[in-house]
Amino acid sequence: MIEAPGGPVRIREFPEPELEPGAALLRTQYTEVCGTDVHLLHGRLDAAPYPLIPGHINVGTIEATAGDVTDALGGPLSEGDLVTFLDVHETCNACWQCLVAKSTTRCPSRRVYGITYGVEDGLLGGWSERIYLKPGVRIVRLPESVTAERFIAGGCALPTALHAIQRGDVRLGDNVVVQGSGPVGLMATALARLAGANRVILVGAPQRRLEVGERLGADATIDITATPIEERRERVLELTSGHGADVTIEATGAPEAVPEGMHLTRDGGVYVVVGQYTDAGEVAVSPHHDINRKHLDVRGCWGIDFSHFYRSIEVLARHGDTPEWESVISGFYPLDDAAQALADVENLRVVKAVLKPNA
Amino acid sequence: MIEAPGGPVRIREFPEPELEPGAALLRTQYTEVCGTDVHLLHGRLDAAPYPLIPGHINVGTIEATAGDVTDALGGPLSEGDLVTFLDVHETCNACWQCLVAKSTTRCPSRRVYGITYGVEDGLLGGWSERIYLKPGVRIVRLPESVTAERFIAGGCALPTALHAIQRGDVRLGDNVVVQGSGPVGLMATALARLAGANRVILVGAPQRRLEVGERLGADATIDITATPIEERRERVLELTSGHGADVTIEATGAPEAVPEGMHLTRDGGVYVVVGQYTDAGEVAVSPHHDINRKHLDVRGCWGIDFSHFYRSIEVLARHGDTPEWESVISGFYPLDDAAQALADVENLRVVKAVLKPNA
Amino acid sequence: MIEAPGGPVRIREFPEPELEPGAALLRTQYTEVCGTDVHLLHGRLDAAPYPLIPGHINVGTIEATAGDVTDALGGPLSEGDLVTFLDVHETCNACWQCLVAKSTTRCPSRRVYGITYGVEDGLLGGWSERIYLKPGVRIVRLPESVTAERFIAGGCALPTALHAIQRGDVRLGDNVVVQGSGPVGLMATALARLAGANRVILVGAPQRRLEVGERLGADATIDITATPIEERRERVLELTSGHGADVTIEATGAPEAVPEGMHLTRDGGVYVVVGQYTDAGEVAVSPHHDINRKHLDVRGCWGIDFSHFYRSIEVLARHGDTPEWESVISGFYPLDDAAQALADVENLRVVKAVLKPNA
Amino acid sequence: MIEAPGGPVRIREFPEPELEPGAALLRTQYTEVCGTDVHLLHGRLDAAPYPLIPGHINVGTIEATAGDVTDALGGPLSEGDLVTFLDVHETCNACWQCLVAKSTTRCPSRRVYGITYGVEDGLLGGWSERIYLKPGVRIVRLPESVTAERFIAGGCALPTALHAIQRGDVRLGDNVVVQGSGPVGLMATALARLAGANRVILVGAPQRRLEVGERLGADATIDITATPIEERRERVLELTSGHGADVTIEATGAPEAVPEGMHLTRDGGVYVVVGQYTDAGEVAVSPHHDINRKHLDVRGCWGIDFSHFYRSIEVLARHGDTPEWESVISGFYPLDDAAQALADVENLRVVKAVLKPNA
Repeated sequence: MIEAPGGPVRIREFPEPELEPGAALLRTQYTEVCGTDVHLLHGRLDAAPYPLIPGHINVGTIEATAGDVTDALGGPLSEGDLVTFLDVHETCNACWQCLVAKSTTRCPSRRVYGITYGVEDGLLGGWSERIYLKPGVRIVRLPESVTAERFIAGGCALPTALHAIQRGDVRLGDNVVVQGSGPVGLMATALARLAGANRVILVGAPQRRLEVGERLGADATIDITATPIEERRERVLELTSGHGADVTIEATGAPEAVPEGMHLTRDGGVYVVVGQYTDAGEVAVSPHHDINRKHLDVRGCWGIDFSHFYRSIEVLARHGDTPEWESVISGFYPLDDAAQALADVENLRVVKAVLKPNA
Repeated sequence: MIEAPGGPVRIREFPEPELEPGAALLRTQYTEVCGTDVHLLHGRLDAAPYPLIPGHINVGTIEATAGDVTDALGGPLSEGDLVTFLDVHETCNACWQCLVAKSTTRCPSRRVYGITYGVEDGLLGGWSERIYLKPGVRIVRLPESVTAERFIAGGCALPTALHAIQRGDVRLGDNVVVQGSGPVGLMATALARLAGANRVILVGAPQRRLEVGERLGADATIDITATPIEERRERVLELTSGHGADVTIEATGAPEAVPEGMHLTRDGGVYVVVGQYTDAGEVAVSPHHDINRKHLDVRGCWGIDFSHFYRSIEVLARHGDTPEWESVISGFYPLDDAAQALADVENLRVVKAVLKPNA
Repeated sequence: MIEAPGGPVRIREFPEPELEPGAALLRTQYTEVCGTDVHLLHGRLDAAPYPLIPGHINVGTIEATAGDVTDALGGPLSEGDLVTFLDVHETCNACWQCLVAKSTTRCPSRRVYGITYGVEDGLLGGWSERIYLKPGVRIVRLPESVTAERFIAGGCALPTALHAIQRGDVRLGDNVVVQGSGPVGLMATALARLAGANRVILVGAPQRRLEVGERLGADATIDITATPIEERRERVLELTSGHGADVTIEATGAPEAVPEGMHLTRDGGVYVVVGQYTDAGEVAVSPHHDINRKHLDVRGCWGIDFSHFYRSIEVLARHGDTPEWESVISGFYPLDDAAQALADVENLRVVKAVLKPNA
Repeated sequence: MIEAPGGPVRIREFPEPELEPGAALLRTQYTEVCGTDVHLLHGRLDAAPYPLIPGHINVGTIEATAGDVTDALGGPLSEGDLVTFLDVHETCNACWQCLVAKSTTRCPSRRVYGITYGVEDGLLGGWSERIYLKPGVRIVRLPESVTAERFIAGGCALPTALHAIQRGDVRLGDNVVVQGSGPVGLMATALARLAGANRVILVGAPQRRLEVGERLGADATIDITATPIEERRERVLELTSGHGADVTIEATGAPEAVPEGMHLTRDGGVYVVVGQYTDAGEVAVSPHHDINRKHLDVRGCWGIDFSHFYRSIEVLARHGDTPEWESVISGFYPLDDAAQALADVENLRVVKAVLKPNA
């Protein structure tokens, strides 16, 4: 668990929890070390209460259930089933955002495993040998064709990227630029390729990640550490017959990526902002050049709902072997090395680190 | 005509033009003095060659035609008909923007009467007793129920606002904020009301314009000279059950209106940027708070095409008496007073000034 | 209550119900006699168990609550509050239709007051002095500006029509044809007018209903009993510059209206089918002429969700006095005259009949 | 050429045409024998004047140009360039359909090579050694990676299918049913696969065509000659987790396919009707079950415009080797065997027949 903003990350023993009716206990097989966990370590998320157990996307086996527990769509569950669950829960279905505006990812009641719960709330994070699944948590059994390794390769990045691809309305034949080569950018690259993009151009760093991007379907990559901003634009124009991208997906977290991404998009194109998950400051844009005169569509993309989670598992089941999903996993770490895994993620030494709490 | 960036505005005699086949000559009844003309006076539009004759939206009578001249949809035209025409022409229908991307307002060939033509090109601006209608210019005969005064009250602002309302997908029951009380903002106010908005809130200045906004359909107005920015936001939240606007339409030309407009819009809402017609500089936005976390749709809106022009005349024909379209016209000026009219517009002494070149 | 398919309609005494926690008891002020109730009388709805208490849209005052009962969005409720509630409930938010396809009106768990409940389930229909509001029923307090009479004038037709207008994407300036002058058609007429339609043309019968349509905003009406089908088409073409309607909304229940409605719609237009609530048989259409070559959009529109219900009350609050909503109510009947009211509705002797169970 | 409705098909010598300014002469390499040509032979198209030269989709080399002739987007053309051209031309860009409704495929002025021109109009069909390209015809040079064989494999079916895929809004992860295994159905199969469909299910006959469908990307095929209609539905439900297709694309020409296609589509899904190109009669549908209660979207899809043609060539250039485009071509025929080719197409002895006029 993370003790407090700034750390430390340390291990603690908890008693076996008692299950209230409708709850289940998961034996954690894999849990992700995500960029969000780096934010948690540094106290950048307002909603997080410390100390807390990180780990919002997890996969494991049902160890125990209290009474009748089903998967999210009412299917039966048995002990030993390999399952995952949607970290977001308690979306209320009873507020103006949920019922009238139908913007459920803006529901004020939603809670997130591994982020908005503290240690006092129980075993509600994945960096743990067991996870307590509260009644109503939306559980999905993995299809036979989706291994635990493949699922965790997609991680939280895959449904997030799926939401961004939907939000950007990526269509057969579109030229797509993806900004950012972290897990979300890499998964957006894979999905844009699967969605029949004409060219997928991945703009990011370091080189190791760009190579993974190529294995996932990028037609071209641009290393931002080696290519000045004006050259990046020229390169994108070259690759798009001089027009710019039909759709650009921002997945960087860096505010300065936003005006650059607008410039990389064609007049009348679509720019999806999905990577600005925390407040990293403001950036100057030109309303005349970048928005109005470009006739640009800029679309913020916040969170995921169950449909993105469910459909991303369907995508894994359908397109299991190509792209090479597992190429994003740099290494598996035991729980004892969680701090090291977090440091490796923060310093970009790895693409994605995965914890095996019961290793 | 405007001699050069910075002026002066002066009158010049031209010989009667000879008509090439398919051309027509218009006797100008009214021509607008638009904010764009203020930009022209100060040399803020790159595409404008000096000296030039301003006046892009005009209404008058057909004085002569050379051969077979029809209206835009092939209907017959006779001398004496009261007509207007789309200032934008030569959209090529033969480039990637026109044919593939279908972003015709981004066609590089388009030319605009009163803006992209110089005096050397002929009588191609409305501040003139006669206007030369080149072959292919899209002419529309005014329906009987639309007087010349009512048409010029709408002016270029009405089709621009119609485009913005379409781009914003304003629907029955939406709460709409309009930023800016110049002609485009006032017409957007009128159209949002006609489109069945729940509440239309007009944010602008000075008071005289806000009063016109109320006559055009605003439910509430906020005077930016009397209300600090934070109070404006509180007022909008109050008027929208705490959510913010479903759709906000920016029609100000001031970059700083953009982040404010984002704050006035609800999570998951739509923000249309239509007023940033010239480059007035950059502005700082927060990609996290203003776009990503808000799940906001930001939509640039550039120019108009024939459909907006045609449909805006239909709106005038249908909703002739309510709203009070003519309330935007502060006064009619003879051509001799063009410089004065321009100064009155620039200094916000009037809402809209109209020239009568043949008065 | 209706005893069985075919009737009779008779009155029965029930004991005062006991309230389970979270439930409330409503003293019924008004309840609608709807075309659906005619279908119920004749046993045309598969889901209906007999004997049953009809009445799905109701308004009344809170008489008692068991524990903490709030309105649908969490607001406080007190005894004596004037409220209504969404007849559709138990939409599960836990099935593939709800969570993945987001077609909540196709959720198999949904139940409807006054339709899918039998007498054995309790006081779950509005033709009753009291209505039992089960826990979780979505209650809405009427805004001050919406009287009980005005609300019941809208009835279930208003949110249904709102859904149809949204589904048809009716926009400012569209020419709209409405087929059918029952409550749904009349409310669609009113809403199309409020949404800024250019011309609203109501096609129906008898004359009495068409006159109400004019009071609600129809620009033209066509009496199907006096005008042969080919003349109806010619009249619509005349009124739409020869093109046909941009959007046509079917609200008749008669299968033969469907091909006619396709012919009344312009090439590339939208045809919404909302009135085919029960199975009245098949009808022949020409896939070539009516769909493919016309490049037509045909959109089925099933049921309503809370957003339509909530927003329709907002529309009543905003546009209270124009249109003349109450003009659809032909008369108020005591509960003893329910059978008569039903017969009057079936025989088109009235536009809308309203019951006052506590009169 | 086809002499008259009913035939015969015979060869005739024409003099070398003189080129008016802006025209070009094409030496035909390949021309398609399309289902449309079978319709022409039997006189099923109203717009066709006899005698006429069939062949609307063609590829060949520029043999001569009169003055300055460019490709559709203004690029240079030289003798010997391998080009194709859009058969649809003279879309007027000056009528209500083109300018206001933006339904350009419904423009009344459009003419089509090989269909709406008779022999008296000149060499305006592809079953000819030379084709006369009138000024303004939209010519596209084939990219290097697209051979003439690959282009003609796509033929007119590919842009038609692309339009249908766009109209159906096929998205990553959708289950797609394609009805009809002629060229349009096969190309829709290939494009649905490229667009990232979860499962593509091709319903058609004979077996030979279904096998080609598998090579183009079908996950499953259903032979309508071997599987009764109710079993077809069960099979589709099985393959779609019991829901039916998210999107079904009709490409059969048989009216009875339409109600079946509606049944194969899920509630709230999309049904595209693109195959009902000629009038083959009416069919009975149930407005209640098939449209209203299903909350179905039915979308007619008529013709193509330049964007579909241009983008389909981009798709060929990008996805050249997979799918196996050329697998649809059953054989190449010399012009002398045109009647035989037509008979082979009509009798489904071949998938697609291609003529080599200069063989």
